[in-house]
Amino acid sequence: MDVQIITIGDEILIGQIIDTNSAWIGQLLNKHGFRISKIVTVGDGEQEIFSAIESGMNQSDLVLLTGGLGPTKDDITKKVIANYFDVEMEFSEETWEKISKFFKHIGRTTTPAHREQCYMPANVNLLYNKMGTAPGMWFEKDNKVLISMPGVPYEMKYIMEHQVLPKIKEKFRTTPIAHRTIRTAGIGESRIAERVQSIEANLPDFIKLAFLPSLGHVRLRLTGMHESEEELNLILDKKVKEIEAEISDIIYASEDISLEEVVNKRLIEKGLTISTAESCTGGYIAHRLTSVTGSSAYFKGSVIAYANEIKMEQLNVNEETLEKHGAVSEATVTEMVKGCLKRMQTDIAIATSGIMGPTGGTPNKPVGTIWIAIGNKEEIKTLKLQLGKHRLKNIEYTANMALNLLFKFLIDRKNP
Amino acid sequence: MDVQIITIGDEILIGQIIDTNSAWIGQLLNKHGFRISKIVTVGDGEQEIFSAIESGMNQSDLVLLTGGLGPTKDDITKKVIANYFDVEMEFSEETWEKISKFFKHIGRTTTPAHREQCYMPANVNLLYNKMGTAPGMWFEKDNKVLISMPGVPYEMKYIMEHQVLPKIKEKFRTTPIAHRTIRTAGIGESRIAERVQSIEANLPDFIKLAFLPSLGHVRLRLTGMHESEEELNLILDKKVKEIEAEISDIIYASEDISLEEVVNKRLIEKGLTISTAESCTGGYIAHRLTSVTGSSAYFKGSVIAYANEIKMEQLNVNEETLEKHGAVSEATVTEMVKGCLKRMQTDIAIATSGIMGPTGGTPNKPVGTIWIAIGNKEEIKTLKLQLGKHRLKNIEYTANMALNLLFKFLIDRKNP
Repeated sequence: MDVQIITIGDEILIGQIIDTNSAWIGQLLNKHGFRISKIVTVGDGEQEIFSAIESGMNQSDLVLLTGGLGPTKDDITKKVIANYFDVEMEFSEETWEKISKFFKHIGRTTTPAHREQCYMPANVNLLYNKMGTAPGMWFEKDNKVLISMPGVPYEMKYIMEHQVLPKIKEKFRTTPIAHRTIRTAGIGESRIAERVQSIEANLPDFIKLAFLPSLGHVRLRLTGMHESEEELNLILDKKVKEIEAEISDIIYASEDISLEEVVNKRLIEKGLTISTAESCTGGYIAHRLTSVTGSSAYFKGSVIAYANEIKMEQLNVNEETLEKHGAVSEATVTEMVKGCLKRMQTDIAIATSGIMGPTGGTPNKPVGTIWIAIGNKEEIKTLKLQLGKHRLKNIEYTANMALNLLFKFLIDRKNP
Repeated sequence: MDVQIITIGDEILIGQIIDTNSAWIGQLLNKHGFRISKIVTVGDGEQEIFSAIESGMNQSDLVLLTGGLGPTKDDITKKVIANYFDVEMEFSEETWEKISKFFKHIGRTTTPAHREQCYMPANVNLLYNKMGTAPGMWFEKDNKVLISMPGVPYEMKYIMEHQVLPKIKEKFRTTPIAHRTIRTAGIGESRIAERVQSIEANLPDFIKLAFLPSLGHVRLRLTGMHESEEELNLILDKKVKEIEAEISDIIYASEDISLEEVVNKRLIEKGLTISTAESCTGGYIAHRLTSVTGSSAYFKGSVIAYANEIKMEQLNVNEETLEKHGAVSEATVTEMVKGCLKRMQTDIAIATSGIMGPTGGTPNKPVGTIWIAIGNKEEIKTLKLQLGKHRLKNIEYTANMALNLLFKFLIDRKNP
């Protein structure tokens, strides 16, 4: 059973956008035991798409196409597919109804291009797309499957998770597969690998351990494939316990959920409220906290204090503190936490201040110098980071570290 | 003249890392008039690499390989290349000297794996790598070229810019290529397509128009290839003007820069300061504004007012307004702007309030009901959105619309 991904778009070939869809699909399918042998990107030309589909279908059992399904002229994928299967294009009433309904709902009228969009190759099986107007399409020939999806990431992701995955599991699945994910923060991949070395060396053949690093985070994923699902689950659970015992100090979850979701759970359990006082992260920590459904139960608000005057006026940071220690200092973030607790009347507050770059550093405080503080009325913890010069990377990393500090603060509390 | 990129690595197929090398190469080559017809990613297996090289060399004049040149066991690219050209592996004294010197310099000793690394296919032309120990490799056969480079981005980039680009420019004569990008916000791809229909229909054969949509945004890209660069640029500029005249109301930039960068420029030009008062976007607009280098020149801070009490206490929203109209109302966001202007002492303020979902709606105000306001002391503009139930999508879309409203507000101002 072999899978190939074909991504369509001139904009990828000329480097205007980076193909993140394939990586996402790769992760998802790999997790469910499907092996991707090749990723191919071609332009919007008819001939290019045709021969990519042709050789993909010759080489693999399943071909996943993304891109080229929008309503405009440069999207000719559907016609090429009809051509490849040697079928006519037919009008899909189902799709037309859906599009009409959607546009009525948002109070707009449809255009001829939208009607055009409803013509599909006659042999199609539609895959419902909750997130947009272009449905996914499933085709079969000689027991092989071709699937075409829009290139818009959240539409593609919805169709993959809710439509494609269950259907291909039914059609192609053989050996049971299972995973366990352990989420860690704070130390790098190679150091974690060292600490779990002996556990990894003693894994049975049918279990693999993968390290999936992102900024400041590493996910450890155990993947097993075995005829007996029961036995597989027993062994996986045992191995998770062994790893947990070895690196308990850096684990924030033994399931595949994000740090903000973990923090969300803990804050609700403990009935605590939180606010943020952000300088260098410019609201990004608040955004991360409020990305989780239900966050209004504990998140009350923030003061984003980019300018020093806002730090003084809105967060009661002392002028002398700023003069003596600077805005990027332990003293300033500590006062920011205190000011924020008072102003926002929450149980916990987080503060950040730093130089995110690419410019703005000094010899004493180079670009990438960042202070984080977190605390309540009784206690304030601080952390200094020394990062690189990449602005967005620094913002992301700082938010990850701040959320991890919050997580540790929440599990450390004897009295919530 | 046709180029193909082949990226080698299991870690890309399983989505552990995203292939950013290909996009970078695509941008560089496209800028210099080379057309990339295909990007292929394959795993670390000998057979996979061999057939990717074989079909790449059959289809294209130039094949660029990245990855698979490190000192570890799974890097077998060089042997496959020797195999493909049917030549022996030979020890490269030049490379060995360089590696020995480098390790002496950093005070370490070499390992047998480093000597192993110096065996190269006999028909190689080495491409100097200033950034690392593995050189790039140039091979020719039947007037076609195969180039192999390490996958480490800064090493690959050095070799591409300083070695590959000058050499391929010398070897392959290319047709000049040029692009123009127009960025729009506010209306969908199919509606824009309709409005520029006649312009698109009258484009010469050598110019293509592509629509690249994202949430609330569409980029229009004109790509042309022509023997005369001068003529090409003249026609492209003329076509851009035609499009601009047709859809001036939705264009925010006639170059490829983001809305926040455009807004950044305008605010700096006009010497205006800005703050945000965010409820439903939870700091995300502030994050977008502060993602741009130099934003501290105009962005002073924000009040994120998730809880109603914060709206009242920090932004002076009247209790009666909240009771009568609700937190998600035109009246509330208008008061939030006023309160924010006063509190943050900025020239302009943006406010948002809405129900982001997936739950929390009422019959009168279903999930996806969002109000945005933007204004200064003289004037406040408001906008109502009616979106879907996808929380992150709603946050992203609302921020895009708010930034677009800010852009329009800035160009509407008679007196800055």
